[in-house]
Amino acid sequence: MAKQKKQPRPKAETPKGFRDYFGPEVTERAEMLQQIARVYHLYGFEALESSAVETVEALGKFLPDVDRPNEGVFAWQEDSEGDKPGDWLALRYDLTAPLARVYAQHRNDLPTPYRRYAMGPVWRNEKPGPGRFRQFYQCDADTVGAPSVAADAEICAMLSDTLEQVGIPRGDYIVRVNNRKVLNGVLEVMGLEEGEQRDAVLRTIDKFDKVGEEGVRELLGKGRLDASGAYIDGVGLSDDQAGPVLTFLTAKKTHPSMTLGVLRNAVGHSVVGQEGVQELETIAELLAAQGYGPDRVEIDPSVVRGLGYYTGPVFEAELTFEIFDEKGRKRQFGSVAGGGRYDDLVKRFTGQAVPATGVSIGVDRLLAALREKGRIGGAVEGPVVVTVMDRDRMADYQDMVGELRRAGIRAEVYLGNPKNFGNQMKYADRRGSPIAVIEGGDEKERGVVQIKDLILGAKIAENATLEEWKERPSQFEVPRAQLVEKVREILDGQGS
Amino acid sequence: MAKQKKQPRPKAETPKGFRDYFGPEVTERAEMLQQIARVYHLYGFEALESSAVETVEALGKFLPDVDRPNEGVFAWQEDSEGDKPGDWLALRYDLTAPLARVYAQHRNDLPTPYRRYAMGPVWRNEKPGPGRFRQFYQCDADTVGAPSVAADAEICAMLSDTLEQVGIPRGDYIVRVNNRKVLNGVLEVMGLEEGEQRDAVLRTIDKFDKVGEEGVRELLGKGRLDASGAYIDGVGLSDDQAGPVLTFLTAKKTHPSMTLGVLRNAVGHSVVGQEGVQELETIAELLAAQGYGPDRVEIDPSVVRGLGYYTGPVFEAELTFEIFDEKGRKRQFGSVAGGGRYDDLVKRFTGQAVPATGVSIGVDRLLAALREKGRIGGAVEGPVVVTVMDRDRMADYQDMVGELRRAGIRAEVYLGNPKNFGNQMKYADRRGSPIAVIEGGDEKERGVVQIKDLILGAKIAENATLEEWKERPSQFEVPRAQLVEKVREILDGQGS
Repeated sequence: MAKQKKQPRPKAETPKGFRDYFGPEVTERAEMLQQIARVYHLYGFEALESSAVETVEALGKFLPDVDRPNEGVFAWQEDSEGDKPGDWLALRYDLTAPLARVYAQHRNDLPTPYRRYAMGPVWRNEKPGPGRFRQFYQCDADTVGAPSVAADAEICAMLSDTLEQVGIPRGDYIVRVNNRKVLNGVLEVMGLEEGEQRDAVLRTIDKFDKVGEEGVRELLGKGRLDASGAYIDGVGLSDDQAGPVLTFLTAKKTHPSMTLGVLRNAVGHSVVGQEGVQELETIAELLAAQGYGPDRVEIDPSVVRGLGYYTGPVFEAELTFEIFDEKGRKRQFGSVAGGGRYDDLVKRFTGQAVPATGVSIGVDRLLAALREKGRIGGAVEGPVVVTVMDRDRMADYQDMVGELRRAGIRAEVYLGNPKNFGNQMKYADRRGSPIAVIEGGDEKERGVVQIKDLILGAKIAENATLEEWKERPSQFEVPRAQLVEKVREILDGQGS
Repeated sequence: MAKQKKQPRPKAETPKGFRDYFGPEVTERAEMLQQIARVYHLYGFEALESSAVETVEALGKFLPDVDRPNEGVFAWQEDSEGDKPGDWLALRYDLTAPLARVYAQHRNDLPTPYRRYAMGPVWRNEKPGPGRFRQFYQCDADTVGAPSVAADAEICAMLSDTLEQVGIPRGDYIVRVNNRKVLNGVLEVMGLEEGEQRDAVLRTIDKFDKVGEEGVRELLGKGRLDASGAYIDGVGLSDDQAGPVLTFLTAKKTHPSMTLGVLRNAVGHSVVGQEGVQELETIAELLAAQGYGPDRVEIDPSVVRGLGYYTGPVFEAELTFEIFDEKGRKRQFGSVAGGGRYDDLVKRFTGQAVPATGVSIGVDRLLAALREKGRIGGAVEGPVVVTVMDRDRMADYQDMVGELRRAGIRAEVYLGNPKNFGNQMKYADRRGSPIAVIEGGDEKERGVVQIKDLILGAKIAENATLEEWKERPSQFEVPRAQLVEKVREILDGQGS
């Protein structure tokens, strides 16, 4: 004890960029993940949970987000064993890299194609910002070993079903599809071979979301003065050269067949480009045949997120309803999921290219969207609180909550110091309790309990007239034997 | 690309001591955790999810398991910022240390008492062994700020309800309760003050599970030859001195009042000891009043796990049914949960002692027990597989799975290379599919589909007579329009 006094007290703080989640924040997320898992399961996907820790070697560096190239992982070195230095381990930064490792490791025991879903936290060792945390949830579904674009189409259909399942109504979202191969065709037609300039074009395209058509035109050409006043050097293409890229990015027309026509034109004789257009057409046809028309899934070449990372079709789910941003301006809610085909990921391990396609849902963004829509985050469902009037009769009070719980009603005895009754009511208030139950010595003698309707009580306190107050009292007495029945009645009334 | 070729391929391996969980291993655990959360919620507990990462400073060193004092955490140092060296961060090793940090950090915003539950992985940087992993799940419930033993009694009742809820029948488990204060009283009566010898006695008692009464007697005295042939030095007490400790450990009698009588005797005039006995009596009374008799919760001073860590009541849930161990010997399944009162944990941060009591369920042990009881791990529920006979008619096949899914039937189109039909059937087999659907050109023309009952087919292949084979064919033709109806019918039949 003497030793402890000398040490300064540890700070009770989450590490920078991490946070705690309380009550409904946890349960609402868990419920949403369950709903998503139900859809994935219906589509034949199997759950996979890999460990949070991987070797740095296995993780590699395959982050899709080219915006953040300096992004790191949390890593540490294992203790050495004898002369052998310890492995470097790290927390996973996404669920795709572990999938590649799992598939390479267990491929002889897994079915082909292997459809798996995974959900859980991932970690990024980056500078935290407002609303940006270093641990967050992802929820992925991928099909490994399916070369056909039918697998991509299915992912899009499943994504659409998933959004509706969790509570985003049709019309409030759109799944947009693009194809890296079409872009490759355009670049080929432009005469841009693989290399530095091509990579620079890819990086520029990725900024289309932020800087728009004009911005991309400038960045493909001489350069551009950005919002901060800094001058960003351009790729150095002529206007003529940049033209096809802009045609590609803005190819979306009102009807899919028109969009495909523009793209077919843009890729000219490029074989890979034609293949890409054909893939988009097949995806659109397959989806249309199942009733997933352009109201749910559409071809849109302006989808650029991850276009440099994926090797074929690319998808993004966007929520189209409007919200007010922090400055009070209206804007669309935006992206909540993204994915695509990446045929090279397992190759790192095995040398063999294995076709794979999948989607990742941004769990926290989707939760925020559901809160915006009022689908979750309603009334907090606190427990019925049985107050303690006489601490020697704890067994009586425990008996009451026992009865309530057996009837499926969330309930608890106040377990703090019962001396101050006001504290008990404050506690009930803080917990969002709908009802408090009171049984003092007098009530006990008469075989009754007092039931306090806290929701009604709060309403009355707020704005009731004296008549209303009298007419419908928020506290009344019932025989002890009717406790459960009466509580149930009030809860049912409160819910309506 | 040229660069990659030069690098050796990374090994596709989980880090040592970690593992992957597939399909039912994941979903069965998730379902069990949901069931547990439902009970905790009913008892008024709120979910809490803290981050996996804590500062090493906040985590401290409070592992309850004195058996493994060298146990470590996975830790790393943050990058320094300017002159300031980076914080040391670590993965949490349990859910109790983070609770202490969370409560200290947010205590002004949390209700008192604060009832919270938490579930999730924890990490231990220790030598992995067979069946012992460096990442595993825990599921905890704790009440912080409740000084009364009514809170301890409630945890015991809840633990009992939880075990029954997940599928352990009454009679197959027992929640055993002990109290550190009673032991303290015994040690006081023996004249053992706090200090080295007392700590040695505590460590010895912790071995009671392994070495039994005689072993503890020897270890409290001169010492003992252990199974490996090594001589373990004893604490050096005389037989007379050791007596009360052994009386305490073996105090359990057939009736709680008798057990309490023995304990009351053993603590003599020790105030803390008497208080401890009184607490046990109150717990037993409160539980009995609610119907939790000695068939579910019993007072048993031989519960020693963590007795050195907790400060008051200690509980352990043991499964009493017998299993065969790896050597074919019968033994009781053993402990699946433990907990107790620890009134000093928050004090590290705030300087104030805050009473707290709680329980931690060993999720993987409990899952193993449910598998033993045949409560989980039954038939794998694979998807209906629609085979691809004509790859140009993918839309037709997608249509079928769409219909099936809308009827709530798990289904998928085969998305591998469809050339070899045998591979498609092998895939269905590997997935545990109950049914395969076949529609070739001929069937398409005639407006029918072939339905293959794979479960029945397997049975027939195994042991049917020719008559049975003819009588109940495992493959038949139905009109395309009756696909869903017929599949449902077969599934219902298979389930029965």
